[in-house]
Amino acid sequence: MKLKINRVELLNALNKVSKAVNNKTPLLALTGIKFTLSDDGLELIGSDSDISIRCFINKEKKEKQIIEIEEIGSVVINEKIVCEIIRKIESEMVEISVVDNLTKIKSDKSIFSVNCIPAIDYPPISFADTENGQSFVMESIELKELFDQTLFATSEKEARPVLTGLNFKCVGTTLEVVATDTYRLSKKVVQMQNPLEFNITIPKSALENVNKIVEVGQNVRVSITEKKVSFDLGDCIVNTRLISGSYPDTSRLIPNEFSQVLNISTNELVGAIERASILLTEKNNVVKLNMDETEVFVSSKTMEVGYVVEKLNECAFEGEKLTIAFSAKYLLDAIKAIVSDEISLQFTGDMKPIIIKSKSNPTLTELILPVRSYN
Amino acid sequence: MKLKINRVELLNALNKVSKAVNNKTPLLALTGIKFTLSDDGLELIGSDSDISIRCFINKEKKEKQIIEIEEIGSVVINEKIVCEIIRKIESEMVEISVVDNLTKIKSDKSIFSVNCIPAIDYPPISFADTENGQSFVMESIELKELFDQTLFATSEKEARPVLTGLNFKCVGTTLEVVATDTYRLSKKVVQMQNPLEFNITIPKSALENVNKIVEVGQNVRVSITEKKVSFDLGDCIVNTRLISGSYPDTSRLIPNEFSQVLNISTNELVGAIERASILLTEKNNVVKLNMDETEVFVSSKTMEVGYVVEKLNECAFEGEKLTIAFSAKYLLDAIKAIVSDEISLQFTGDMKPIIIKSKSNPTLTELILPVRSYN
Repeated sequence: MKLKINRVELLNALNKVSKAVNNKTPLLALTGIKFTLSDDGLELIGSDSDISIRCFINKEKKEKQIIEIEEIGSVVINEKIVCEIIRKIESEMVEISVVDNLTKIKSDKSIFSVNCIPAIDYPPISFADTENGQSFVMESIELKELFDQTLFATSEKEARPVLTGLNFKCVGTTLEVVATDTYRLSKKVVQMQNPLEFNITIPKSALENVNKIVEVGQNVRVSITEKKVSFDLGDCIVNTRLISGSYPDTSRLIPNEFSQVLNISTNELVGAIERASILLTEKNNVVKLNMDETEVFVSSKTMEVGYVVEKLNECAFEGEKLTIAFSAKYLLDAIKAIVSDEISLQFTGDMKPIIIKSKSNPTLTELILPVRSYN
Repeated sequence: MKLKINRVELLNALNKVSKAVNNKTPLLALTGIKFTLSDDGLELIGSDSDISIRCFINKEKKEKQIIEIEEIGSVVINEKIVCEIIRKIESEMVEISVVDNLTKIKSDKSIFSVNCIPAIDYPPISFADTENGQSFVMESIELKELFDQTLFATSEKEARPVLTGLNFKCVGTTLEVVATDTYRLSKKVVQMQNPLEFNITIPKSALENVNKIVEVGQNVRVSITEKKVSFDLGDCIVNTRLISGSYPDTSRLIPNEFSQVLNISTNELVGAIERASILLTEKNNVVKLNMDETEVFVSSKTMEVGYVVEKLNECAFEGEKLTIAFSAKYLLDAIKAIVSDEISLQFTGDMKPIIIKSKSNPTLTELILPVRSYN
């Protein structure tokens, strides 16, 4: 393999594919990025075997030559080393050539000679067979919003693997995206242009990678087959395995009728919860809401530290007097996901789930289970 | 104790005294900040018993009332809690009152009740007796430069405690400030206005705290007694114990004559060393300089990774051909301390100390011992 390539174009592509690489993998080849030079351009692949990212750099871009191809071929180079080198050298073009197991990377000033891995040692990764499944297109801005509003609610615990992913369930033209760790739930409803039928769960880490890589203004094609899903961002493709196992049916968890409602300025509630959190500890992360139609208070107490009470002003409570306690972190996560100046907290009783919604963002539903408070 | 106080003024003072507090101390009282309200204003003290910081907030500032005093007294409040509360509440004024072992902190919106510690449990810390020793005044900008250029070279190892501090030795009007970890040395010479005689070693952490707290445009009075030194910044005082034990005489380590000199653009050398460092590991942090009067190269090699060679352009070498190797980190630390566009590396032989100086900063001398390179 031998080529000259525009440094900035190469760096952009490396930054994307490197997101899939896990430097701690026991499989040596996967600590590297696979370079494959063909007559059309340079393909880069990074993978941790569950998630794989492929970028293709065309040899020309808008009639400007990006790559001078001298000899096609392929090689695997350590991800950390090659990214650092391409980031820190200062030339416009960089020359890469492979002789035996040594890759030379030449800039105007420096010559690096880096030990590399034969391409044949890299596990075979296919980006082609996703064409047989179902697919839909979403704008990058809509996709990013979807991830930002749901991913935080996935479970951190490996005990129920299916809950560590994000569930995508499409019936007709209604796509429901759900994350839950059994203590809280985040659900977004998206209207699709064409009817589709699927019910899949995608690993959180894959979606976080898509979220980091996707750029404003891109159209993303999501293709689903039996065991895989791929996100085609135009200049690169993210492939991931699906999580097997059936996702719990969460539709009955969300109540439709409420006995109490608190409408409140988001800023005021976030400020009060953050202040109440000052006295909380890792073990005791509970804030309490005391509400009736005349007054609403946020409070917290930790025996060894102290207690705090704050009255909320910019709010309106309807319904019977209610005292209810929550994880401060879960409440803040949910409120921040909604991104709205005013939110609505809907209650059905003192130990029943609370629903958080906003008028400006009606397709998003946040649910939190209350906790018992002994203070 | 009961008072109302301007929140921003209190927060500024808390941020300063909290620098001395170590939350992991076994002595409960020292996890707190001591508040002492007198008829003149509020004194705050934070301490880890080696280093103590005192701020005094006058009840008036430029004829504006900062504190409304209702009842003088004193109390110790947990540092982390009180700083967080004062940072996150939103009033202009905050009311603090102590009843038994509970401190109430009231803002417009919230009321905190925080468990506190009786002031009598706080160890006695004197800020007064430094007046009997020698003292001098330095501008804050000069002091910050002095710390930035020397502190990094102190030793991290507790085996020789005296090397973990910065040595200040004054003979007549010449003050020499030295840091060394035995592999490198940084020395700054400062001309004093009045003759003084002292030879003291100050703990690095105390000076880092002074460096963080001191503000541009302040005059700092440094007062030295037998066992203590204090830095009076006007609005606050930092007190620290001295490190006992005699500091090694380093004057003979610095050679006066050189057999080779390399004058070089700082940017070019830093870039080359940073690039050479990409292939280095924690165990092998060595870069090599190959110099003769026609060419200068920076190179590095790590057997399992690869090697790199870079030719330097903006430089001039005088003397006999020389190959010499250094810790990349030490070289970068020294070059960055000098802050100059062009620097001079002075050599006396292949295993002799190298001196780094710059014409624009002649009072600073950086010394590094070379290492053997087997590559």
